[in-house]
Amino acid sequence: MMVLGGTASNGLDISLARILNADLGKIETTKFPDGEIKVRLPEIDDNSIVIVQSTHYPQEKNLFELMFTAYALKERNANVCAVLPYLAYARQNKSFAPGEAVSINAVLNMLEAAGINALVTVNPHKSEPLDLFKGKVCIVNSAHTLAQGVKAHLKNPFVLAPDSSALSVAKPAAEVLGCEYTYIDKHRDAYGNVTMQKAHGGNFKGKDVVIVDDMIAAGSTIELATRFAYTEGAASVSAACIHLVMVNNAYQRLKNAGVDKIFGTNTIPFDKAEIIDVAEDVAKCVSSVYKE
Amino acid sequence: MMVLGGTASNGLDISLARILNADLGKIETTKFPDGEIKVRLPEIDDNSIVIVQSTHYPQEKNLFELMFTAYALKERNANVCAVLPYLAYARQNKSFAPGEAVSINAVLNMLEAAGINALVTVNPHKSEPLDLFKGKVCIVNSAHTLAQGVKAHLKNPFVLAPDSSALSVAKPAAEVLGCEYTYIDKHRDAYGNVTMQKAHGGNFKGKDVVIVDDMIAAGSTIELATRFAYTEGAASVSAACIHLVMVNNAYQRLKNAGVDKIFGTNTIPFDKAEIIDVAEDVAKCVSSVYKE
Repeated sequence: MMVLGGTASNGLDISLARILNADLGKIETTKFPDGEIKVRLPEIDDNSIVIVQSTHYPQEKNLFELMFTAYALKERNANVCAVLPYLAYARQNKSFAPGEAVSINAVLNMLEAAGINALVTVNPHKSEPLDLFKGKVCIVNSAHTLAQGVKAHLKNPFVLAPDSSALSVAKPAAEVLGCEYTYIDKHRDAYGNVTMQKAHGGNFKGKDVVIVDDMIAAGSTIELATRFAYTEGAASVSAACIHLVMVNNAYQRLKNAGVDKIFGTNTIPFDKAEIIDVAEDVAKCVSSVYKE
Repeated sequence: MMVLGGTASNGLDISLARILNADLGKIETTKFPDGEIKVRLPEIDDNSIVIVQSTHYPQEKNLFELMFTAYALKERNANVCAVLPYLAYARQNKSFAPGEAVSINAVLNMLEAAGINALVTVNPHKSEPLDLFKGKVCIVNSAHTLAQGVKAHLKNPFVLAPDSSALSVAKPAAEVLGCEYTYIDKHRDAYGNVTMQKAHGGNFKGKDVVIVDDMIAAGSTIELATRFAYTEGAASVSAACIHLVMVNNAYQRLKNAGVDKIFGTNTIPFDKAEIIDVAEDVAKCVSSVYKE
């Protein structure tokens, strides 16, 4: 087995190769003056290749690098497992308005056509679209690992999910932290007034509330949850999210709202947070894919 | 039949719909704050769809827009003909160094997998890679049309191909202009000295030399040919090339070398040249694809 790190592997390729005791190679990507990219593979002696390439911004470039690499390996009849620590376009998983293309379907189809035999990804926003992928799929839930990284930093933790859909990450995190958890139940009345309440009850007073979700994009959801937690008496508020997309000045927005620490993982590069390596989780998925 | 214009259709969609007497719709593409694009199709009543999307810079975005559109139409079982006036990655048609991915193969595979049934493109740098595409392919040679647009501007034309591979465009252009043509034969001696000569002979003295090729990228080939033509006594030198990629200050480089007029087509937007519409040529190809 050989691990092939793309330009958006964020160090995960190195940890992964070490854990799997595999050779490590690097994909060399250059840009022509007209903007086209060129991918060059290292010498490869193996037939089982694990490509590591996250597909955060610039998504198209990162996806093309992955696609060019996978297709070149397909031409050599290699068995390719692609690790996409962050899966681009996972949020466009339906037509939210008439005529909207379901981007994630097209992306998964493209990866499959490029010759990717197995797909490993960490906490995709929704997992259902991955059912479309005809090859093997292994979805990593790094909630436990994220929470392990948070543990030493909080004395009296209380896990808060900003909405019910965040529970897939928040609940396992609460298990690891050995603490209570709840989620925010939002209601909008006939006049448009929004009221929020804790779905499971619980008391934030004196607690180190940690807001847990799958991602921070613009940060408005986490901002709202932070203000709610402080209103309800939290001693401190932190945010622990798998994917730190961090757009539109999200960091400053969270800091302004009073978020103490931000925790995330190395699925996306971000240097103003505590970053937890998910390589062990990914390695388990990669191994399981090859065992089947 | 409906013509669906992408954001990189450069007006070709409009001319094409008019010539084909087809409905015209526009693909609406927006960008999320994280950089992902979202494609929205107009209302479509037809089952035969011609997508027009050129794939010049930004290539990845333009290709993704095309791919998302095609895949959404595939999900509706439409019959899709894609017109790529400029075909990205056509120059990376082999491994120029060990390990290099053959990008054009991967791109064609991607377009096919996205559900494109027929492909129409204008003067691709090489046509051989298109043999890989399993659907119908129609290659437009717009050399005649380009030359028609040049005709009124030159009194005593002489067509010069900067190398033998440019003859596929230069020869038909000379036919239309009713003039002589030749190509530059370059030789490098043991000391690295380059000598150039006219392969077919011919006399440039007092002639309006027009350098004809499939594309201008950085312009260094055309620059060299221009200097050669003046050295050989040309009265004026113009450049007529199908695709005006124009990178790395190509325009200024050509002007500095003494290029009088630059002629190109609307496969790529460029506003400092005489632009000739290739819609009639493309329409013929599209019609032939639907007739078969």
